[in-house]
Amino acid sequence: MITQRENTKPVYVGKIKIGGGGVCIQSMCNTDTADIDKTLTQINELIDAGCDIVRLAINDMDAARSLRIIREKTTAALVADIHFDYRLALVCIENAVDKIRINPGNIGEKQKVMQVANACKSHNIPIRIGVNMGSIDKDTEQKFGKTPRAMVESALYHINLLNECDFDDIVISLKASDVVTTVKAYRMISERVKYPLHIGITEAGTAYSGIIKSSVGIGALLLDGIGDTIRVSLTDRPIEEVRAAKEILKATGIVKYGPELISCPTCGRCKIDIMGIAKQVEKVLEKTDKNIKVAVMGCVVNGPGEAKDADIGIAGGDGCAVLFKKGKVISKIKESEILSTLINQIERHGK
Amino acid sequence: MITQRENTKPVYVGKIKIGGGGVCIQSMCNTDTADIDKTLTQINELIDAGCDIVRLAINDMDAARSLRIIREKTTAALVADIHFDYRLALVCIENAVDKIRINPGNIGEKQKVMQVANACKSHNIPIRIGVNMGSIDKDTEQKFGKTPRAMVESALYHINLLNECDFDDIVISLKASDVVTTVKAYRMISERVKYPLHIGITEAGTAYSGIIKSSVGIGALLLDGIGDTIRVSLTDRPIEEVRAAKEILKATGIVKYGPELISCPTCGRCKIDIMGIAKQVEKVLEKTDKNIKVAVMGCVVNGPGEAKDADIGIAGGDGCAVLFKKGKVISKIKESEILSTLINQIERHGK
Repeated sequence: MITQRENTKPVYVGKIKIGGGGVCIQSMCNTDTADIDKTLTQINELIDAGCDIVRLAINDMDAARSLRIIREKTTAALVADIHFDYRLALVCIENAVDKIRINPGNIGEKQKVMQVANACKSHNIPIRIGVNMGSIDKDTEQKFGKTPRAMVESALYHINLLNECDFDDIVISLKASDVVTTVKAYRMISERVKYPLHIGITEAGTAYSGIIKSSVGIGALLLDGIGDTIRVSLTDRPIEEVRAAKEILKATGIVKYGPELISCPTCGRCKIDIMGIAKQVEKVLEKTDKNIKVAVMGCVVNGPGEAKDADIGIAGGDGCAVLFKKGKVISKIKESEILSTLINQIERHGK
Repeated sequence: MITQRENTKPVYVGKIKIGGGGVCIQSMCNTDTADIDKTLTQINELIDAGCDIVRLAINDMDAARSLRIIREKTTAALVADIHFDYRLALVCIENAVDKIRINPGNIGEKQKVMQVANACKSHNIPIRIGVNMGSIDKDTEQKFGKTPRAMVESALYHINLLNECDFDDIVISLKASDVVTTVKAYRMISERVKYPLHIGITEAGTAYSGIIKSSVGIGALLLDGIGDTIRVSLTDRPIEEVRAAKEILKATGIVKYGPELISCPTCGRCKIDIMGIAKQVEKVLEKTDKNIKVAVMGCVVNGPGEAKDADIGIAGGDGCAVLFKKGKVISKIKESEILSTLINQIERHGK
């Protein structure tokens, strides 16, 4: 079965491909872009954490001009986020940014959009048409209300504008803070166009509720084969967005490598500190790239069987545990040795 | 448009309805059920937090017998979780539990299942056929492998057994620790039977990755109209399962009342401590039942427009902010006054 994702048109942001299969991760710096050192530090942190594409707020000419120096000092795929003033986009394009995001709801008249398109075309830079429900253009909102359809129509109008300039390197996003509206809009547009889709929930909130909203919305779309690049928007450090994005890609089966922890909710059968052990093992696994599945299970009765596909695991007894591999019990250990035994097994795995 | 959820057969767990529209929340005590005081305390905590149905591990006769006293002291809808020994179910039924969960993979031969069904029938108690991928019966696994189909076939076989006893008060669950497998299985069975579905991801992990896996899997199903009761399984305090479940119901638009926070990811445009303010406001909102939407936005330029549908909100400037209602700016305030102003507005809302 081919997912819709595999049929989208590939677009290149520097060396990073969006579309045509696979899903890449985006985040956005929260530094003042004109503060070049701070911005570069955050770009590097994000890339190290597994972010593929980094967006920068271009709120004024200082920010746009700073891009020239930032560009010299990093090979990261960089996107300039443009609101209101199309001239900022033109400066960023001159400064060799890898992609331009425009918000069609506030960029103004047709001529301005077309100037940006022509400049991007001559520099081989793609454009994301980044529609936000909160800032949809007035005409569209009047006609279609605050509906998924309104976001789709706004995007289609701007796709046409770009196509009139013979411009085709397009990525689309249709974000609302409401998950249901967002999912409906993406499902609708995925049946209309072949451009790759940047998916996410906007203004999703703090790490807690924001991760839940983003997981529901982005997850539902990815499971349907929709979405070529994702951004988890959180009111938190950008690196937390990347961490959550990676977990969503694992949960949806798109990323199949890497460590995985399965652990049971504790219940009345559990006699050891499963919560504490699971949290510690999670920290250990975050530091490894190994393709390993570890199980931390509360009881010997269900544990080894339920976690048969884990490479290694423990299942708790009364003040003790059994160590098992692929469902087979290997040895009995004391409760105090559980964590060190698991760490040792994780280190030895694959060697 | 009628969702599949509205067409499921309603089943009653005490006073709580599962099926026929709406979605209720479940969790499970992690106390030793034989420790009656601790178990009752946790049941009460869960109910206070918004849990509709509480499950208890019945791992031995002591636990099964404790149900009699627990039953006398709480009106909460209680489910007895039975593995391996069908006789434990019989004692729980005598002790007026509201629902029995059996794991068909380990309950044993047909006669035992039928005895449980007959006892439930005479007491008007529903049964959940709780299939787990990790403990699927051997015949089914041999025939279908570890596939969504295997879980569906296991459930269908046991539905038939219960139907043979003229028993129809059935809830189904098909849980795997893998999200994609789980979602496929539920989609498959939702087209085969009209029984209400209990949905969740099993052994999802710690609060962090477990919430992401559960939000993706449960969220995707709920958005498709599948799922009548949800359980978020976390290796954490059961009350955290209820908190996450409530957020998932809000994110999927199933619960429409209550407080909501929208807040932007900070970016280079933001000059105030949005993260700190959003976290504080989130805490305040957790304590209110008001139907209020609050926005915490980084910049005056985008904030009031993007959050037009918020009842109240602030948007940051340089060392200051504007207070807005439904997108209209009301007043300018100092940065130090943002939190107190928002708290005051939340308190006054609706009065």
